[in-house]
Amino acid sequence: MACTASTASAGKQCFSTRIVRDFQESDLRNLKVDRKRFNDTLHDTCKFGTGQRWGSGQTETGMCRLSLTDSDKEARDWFVQKTKSLGCEVTVDAMGNIFAVRPGRREAPPTFAGSHLDTQPRGGRYDGILGVLSGVEMLQVLNDHAIQTEFPVGVVNWTNEEGARFPIIMVASGVWSGRIPLERAHQLQEVGSGKVTMKSELERIGYLGDTPASHESTPMAAHFELHIEQGPILEATGQKVGVVTTAQAYRWFKVEVQGQEAHTGTTPLNNRADAMLLTSYLIAHSHRLATTHNCVATTGTLEISPGSVNTIPGCVSFTLDVRAPADETLDKIESDMKRDFAALAAGEDIGGLRTGGTRGKPLTVAWQTDANTAATRFHPECVDIVRASAVSVTGSDSLVRDMTSGAGHDSVYTNLQCPTSMIFVPSKDGISHNPVEYTSPEDCAIGAEVLLQSVIRYDRLRSTREAL
Amino acid sequence: MACTASTASAGKQCFSTRIVRDFQESDLRNLKVDRKRFNDTLHDTCKFGTGQRWGSGQTETGMCRLSLTDSDKEARDWFVQKTKSLGCEVTVDAMGNIFAVRPGRREAPPTFAGSHLDTQPRGGRYDGILGVLSGVEMLQVLNDHAIQTEFPVGVVNWTNEEGARFPIIMVASGVWSGRIPLERAHQLQEVGSGKVTMKSELERIGYLGDTPASHESTPMAAHFELHIEQGPILEATGQKVGVVTTAQAYRWFKVEVQGQEAHTGTTPLNNRADAMLLTSYLIAHSHRLATTHNCVATTGTLEISPGSVNTIPGCVSFTLDVRAPADETLDKIESDMKRDFAALAAGEDIGGLRTGGTRGKPLTVAWQTDANTAATRFHPECVDIVRASAVSVTGSDSLVRDMTSGAGHDSVYTNLQCPTSMIFVPSKDGISHNPVEYTSPEDCAIGAEVLLQSVIRYDRLRSTREAL
Ligand SMILES: [Zn+2]
Ligand SMILES: [Zn+2]
Repeated sequence: MACTASTASAGKQCFSTRIVRDFQESDLRNLKVDRKRFNDTLHDTCKFGTGQRWGSGQTETGMCRLSLTDSDKEARDWFVQKTKSLGCEVTVDAMGNIFAVRPGRREAPPTFAGSHLDTQPRGGRYDGILGVLSGVEMLQVLNDHAIQTEFPVGVVNWTNEEGARFPIIMVASGVWSGRIPLERAHQLQEVGSGKVTMKSELERIGYLGDTPASHESTPMAAHFELHIEQGPILEATGQKVGVVTTAQAYRWFKVEVQGQEAHTGTTPLNNRADAMLLTSYLIAHSHRLATTHNCVATTGTLEISPGSVNTIPGCVSFTLDVRAPADETLDKIESDMKRDFAALAAGEDIGGLRTGGTRGKPLTVAWQTDANTAATRFHPECVDIVRASAVSVTGSDSLVRDMTSGAGHDSVYTNLQCPTSMIFVPSKDGISHNPVEYTSPEDCAIGAEVLLQSVIRYDRLRSTREAL
Repeated sequence: MACTASTASAGKQCFSTRIVRDFQESDLRNLKVDRKRFNDTLHDTCKFGTGQRWGSGQTETGMCRLSLTDSDKEARDWFVQKTKSLGCEVTVDAMGNIFAVRPGRREAPPTFAGSHLDTQPRGGRYDGILGVLSGVEMLQVLNDHAIQTEFPVGVVNWTNEEGARFPIIMVASGVWSGRIPLERAHQLQEVGSGKVTMKSELERIGYLGDTPASHESTPMAAHFELHIEQGPILEATGQKVGVVTTAQAYRWFKVEVQGQEAHTGTTPLNNRADAMLLTSYLIAHSHRLATTHNCVATTGTLEISPGSVNTIPGCVSFTLDVRAPADETLDKIESDMKRDFAALAAGEDIGGLRTGGTRGKPLTVAWQTDANTAATRFHPECVDIVRASAVSVTGSDSLVRDMTSGAGHDSVYTNLQCPTSMIFVPSKDGISHNPVEYTSPEDCAIGAEVLLQSVIRYDRLRSTREAL
């Protein structure tokens, strides 16, 4: 029977004669993305917010597309126009989240692919962008083959995932999931000296939608997110796809060390309460504890007061970002850190840090918890579907591994309200949040095909379960 | 014979009938400051630039009198008016240094008492201020007793000693001594985001004088500086006066650590080049080396980039202020630090700092020398005079000790061009550069009397040497 769907491109295999419920493994295996088109589109849209150049090649720049800036608006406008042209209905909610939905044979909550179009100020071309653009490519492929899904499928762009401009990460999926109050998100102020808020910027760029930002107003049947690994594991093992089964728990602390300002030249070492020296011990020790507990701890910001070359710092405050696959590990390292930091501040020697130094006067350490997110276990059905899709696309079990996500992602919030899982592809040298972030066109395409299959497989699963 | 000098106050002993050359030890011992007047004036002038309150008492605030600000101008105006009213001729040079000179029986370069009226932003009421105000009290006492010195005596207020607003310490005595070019000093920009320069601020407050800033235009026979110790030694030993024989050598370095930015959640410890973690090792190690070499090392400023909670810092730069009584000690610790910092950056374990941690990727360390000041040996005659004066005022050898100055002072520069020494009085808890800095009224008065005697003794020494 000839393919009659008007949206099917010439020369592409036509699936419109069969419904997804009847797709066989071989049909799924034959669903390919258009690698050139996909790669071209991915890099073409990087003209919206091009960042720092790191090489001479045309695509060898990073990205600086901070959320709700003019470049973000340009990327959003492109996304809306593109998905509409592919037959989608587009909804914008009160957090500026954009839901593009391609109708299915039946009305029901869509199965979504999604991620984020915003980047870090010195970010790369893949973090977030790959997940949204592979969703757009999925829509293209469905149209190419005139595939009618049983239920709607969609692509979602989540606002301000990075938290780089408005300082709560994943804030808009957080509101959607019900975990973050809309008011709090709307009132978030731009970091630095900026005076604008998320709400004023949403209004300014025309993305303050009428639809409530809630899983109740824009329900999802499932959420699949393709993302770069942002770590070195897949590259090191030579594998191609990570099936993300869990996401790490993390806690953010602010530690304030209080000593005493004094003159650097006139104050003997034994008469000092040097807040920076103690801070050095604390950071070195947090790293040892992370090693012991097989987790990670990082100090990314630090403020020193009064900040004069010839004054011993009276006060230092710094952040600790601590992550582990299990909540219990974080409980343990937190209590170890609190115990040992207090001991080090009092002048005790822990692990030989003070050996060979001069004991000074005692200092104090105060703790504040700025974020506390439990470990995520992604939905077993979605995880199984991603695994099956990954094996199908790569052709080998050995190219696929189960992984834990080290970073937070919008999927962590969607998982609270709908079955969710994630797909990882390799990051060169494990580098991310950096202009040189890189994933090869081949790996991007493999990821997009796993995403495509996963959404189709989920639609098929729903079809068999919710038979007419 | 009756005292006829019009400037002598009623009730004060009149010395005008004898010239300083004939002063006996008992005459010197009887020269007392007016303790109430001195203490009142010292604290009264602290209304110019009152700083942070730390207690409920009237004088329990710190000082914030940054150089060449409006409060500094007020303090300068007071100083000029006051010294003129005491019979001085006042000269302002091109660095805003103020020289108030009380004529002697003969024309010649004056013997100076001097220090600085500027303070740290969170400074106290004694550092610098005590040295200038005790000079003013000296003028008062000379007038009270109608003493005619053989040669002129003066009081000098040096500009921007602290380097807190314009970032070279002792910059104006440095220009006077010939060690710092005038142009460089004039062009110094206000720290932080300020756009003003030393020259523009000197002009603005009316203290850009016509006299060249040079020891040739305003020569000194000698320079004596009373200063608080800013350290804990005199308090700990229960002694009253420090005879400052030497000043420490010091070097200021800027160390820049280059690692690699990466995501905190996705980058395993062994794949990191964490600039902040390495910095912690370097600061801890610099402290150990200072302990080993019996000197001091301090990190007072630190900048972390990019400064995001969830990004591993790619770059950290920090200062090291290293001081030792001997230049050779600094040579040795500098070479040890450079060797060990490079080894730690390459991943080696030095002194067990890396033991129990995870070895990551190598980083680099770059050094820049921002200041390099050799050790100072004050003039033996001046030192002997201060010692004799201190024993005379306190009445006991055991209340006096020879000391090394840990801090830099304007006297370090004057010593290059004229015989110089310094007098220390106790600092409570050794604290300075801090609002709670404190020296008792009794100790301030003792110091002022040692200063007064030292200037008189120096005048007497010159008289005997340069007989008519
Ligand atoms: Zn992302
Ligand atoms: Zn001083």
